[in-house]
Amino acid sequence: MAKKGNLLSFRPDIKVLDATIRDGGLVNNFDFSDEFVKELYKTNIKAGVEYMEFGYRADKDIFNEEEFGKWKFATDDDIYKIVGDSDMVKTAIMADVGRCNYKRDIHPKNESPVDLIRVAAYIHQIPAAIEMIEDFFNKGYETTCNIMAVSTAQLADIKAALEMLGQSPVNGIYIVDSYGSMYPEQISPLTETYVEVAEKYGKYIGMHAHNNQQLAFANTIESCAHGASYLDGTYAGMGRGAGNCSIELLLSFLKNPKYNIYPVLKFLEDYMVPLQKNPDVQWGYNVPYMITGHLNQHPRTAIAATKDNRTDYTNFYNELMDRD
Amino acid sequence: MAKKGNLLSFRPDIKVLDATIRDGGLVNNFDFSDEFVKELYKTNIKAGVEYMEFGYRADKDIFNEEEFGKWKFATDDDIYKIVGDSDMVKTAIMADVGRCNYKRDIHPKNESPVDLIRVAAYIHQIPAAIEMIEDFFNKGYETTCNIMAVSTAQLADIKAALEMLGQSPVNGIYIVDSYGSMYPEQISPLTETYVEVAEKYGKYIGMHAHNNQQLAFANTIESCAHGASYLDGTYAGMGRGAGNCSIELLLSFLKNPKYNIYPVLKFLEDYMVPLQKNPDVQWGYNVPYMITGHLNQHPRTAIAATKDNRTDYTNFYNELMDRD
Repeated sequence: MAKKGNLLSFRPDIKVLDATIRDGGLVNNFDFSDEFVKELYKTNIKAGVEYMEFGYRADKDIFNEEEFGKWKFATDDDIYKIVGDSDMVKTAIMADVGRCNYKRDIHPKNESPVDLIRVAAYIHQIPAAIEMIEDFFNKGYETTCNIMAVSTAQLADIKAALEMLGQSPVNGIYIVDSYGSMYPEQISPLTETYVEVAEKYGKYIGMHAHNNQQLAFANTIESCAHGASYLDGTYAGMGRGAGNCSIELLLSFLKNPKYNIYPVLKFLEDYMVPLQKNPDVQWGYNVPYMITGHLNQHPRTAIAATKDNRTDYTNFYNELMDRD
Repeated sequence: MAKKGNLLSFRPDIKVLDATIRDGGLVNNFDFSDEFVKELYKTNIKAGVEYMEFGYRADKDIFNEEEFGKWKFATDDDIYKIVGDSDMVKTAIMADVGRCNYKRDIHPKNESPVDLIRVAAYIHQIPAAIEMIEDFFNKGYETTCNIMAVSTAQLADIKAALEMLGQSPVNGIYIVDSYGSMYPEQISPLTETYVEVAEKYGKYIGMHAHNNQQLAFANTIESCAHGASYLDGTYAGMGRGAGNCSIELLLSFLKNPKYNIYPVLKFLEDYMVPLQKNPDVQWGYNVPYMITGHLNQHPRTAIAATKDNRTDYTNFYNELMDRD
């Protein structure tokens, strides 16, 4: 497939989604102040960002409300308190398969400030994801299916999942490199596999990258060049472990004149710099994350190593090699 | 041009060059202990790294010896004290056009531990670079010409320079993204332009990247996929400003079984972690570096901003926009 567009063109199909509160929430236990979230929303409006993800709609029967900030549960009421009647930026939430009581907690679209529900599923959970997607579709929402940890899935399974999703009412399908283990030369053919199904069924393709090998931004723009149109970023790359694609890099790269880097820089200096000084809120590339990414493993061991300020990289490497 | 190789193949033409002492020296004024340099040399042997660059051969009439560590001048004697008669890793030095008294300070190859001399030149200095290259060739050395700040050069000038170098006795020609301002989709056609000349004249092509936009590693492997075979990296990415391509990422990526990541991790924990704790020795990606990279400017303003711990990113951005 030919590449779509080049550096000086812009593609009207491209949408940027700010996942700071949701993926960043995994770093600070979803403990963002209302001021932070409101200013972030205003910044996204000024920056031309199309979507803002407000968190998970997690099941309060499974997760104790006392133990998390409110964006773990991202209720309609809490989102409404931020956005009011504004529709300048579309609002998104994430619903994990098996962790969202969606029949109870997802209300009809006309009673909710939410526009897009992103269903996160591992490859074996696709049938369960489709059940949720059908429910959300019937309730009036735009939906995506975010196929997690795709670097550990078999290509045949991915193709089967894409076919099933193609025939579902889902609007978009996301490539999610949860472990930050993929290289651009793997992202391009994988994107083309997704785009083939997307073109057949009229869906769009999205990209959500992690920065374990300093490739989150590179993989996002590689995927974009090969046809992905929904691109996730977070402010200062805030997100689990090594973090995500920095939205400031992404918006500087995209040539669509609707995007504006200036308010993004302002939010970084006013809100992200203070957050980065909090020793309990850690994210970003380091050697343990590189190692889990390289070994195509979940970052949980590297998160623990980072929390403990471990720099005995050779021991850490040996521990991970021993588990296989 | 077809891509060369894929992820699971390895290309015998690939060579990795460790530029830590030379580009990293720009960060700590070339003030490395002998122990550090000796251990780095041993690590490169164990890791399978082919070349190690020991610094600049700067002119002591231009630079005051008292103001710099010895690797600014990287004399044959000082290199010999590290490597002795070993030839397990080839030794390289850099000679800047106009800053190296080469007729006096570069001795015949058979009197020197140096194997490779890399001549650094801006595009308008190519004739002067070729004069040096001819001198070094006659003295028995392998040489490269590293065309600096290529993101600011005109394609017609680059092509003319490549033709001149093609007809010179130079062995290799380097793409140098001094400002860290290039994207992978620019690196691939640029590499192909270089490779075309390389194939015509029997030269090799190298890649030296900077990390201003978190793309040093991505651009290095993109260039590699399109035919570059000499790849620069530094330990922990140590290098001017936002730093370079991390050699640990590069060696994990390359599938040639001669490369070994374990000794690299050991050196990182024993020598780079302590260095990173020194507040006077700063390098690595941050927002000011992203801005100079994005604006295709020399990083000197961002280096000053970083030194002053400035986080008023919007003011910084305005200052840079005002200069144009």
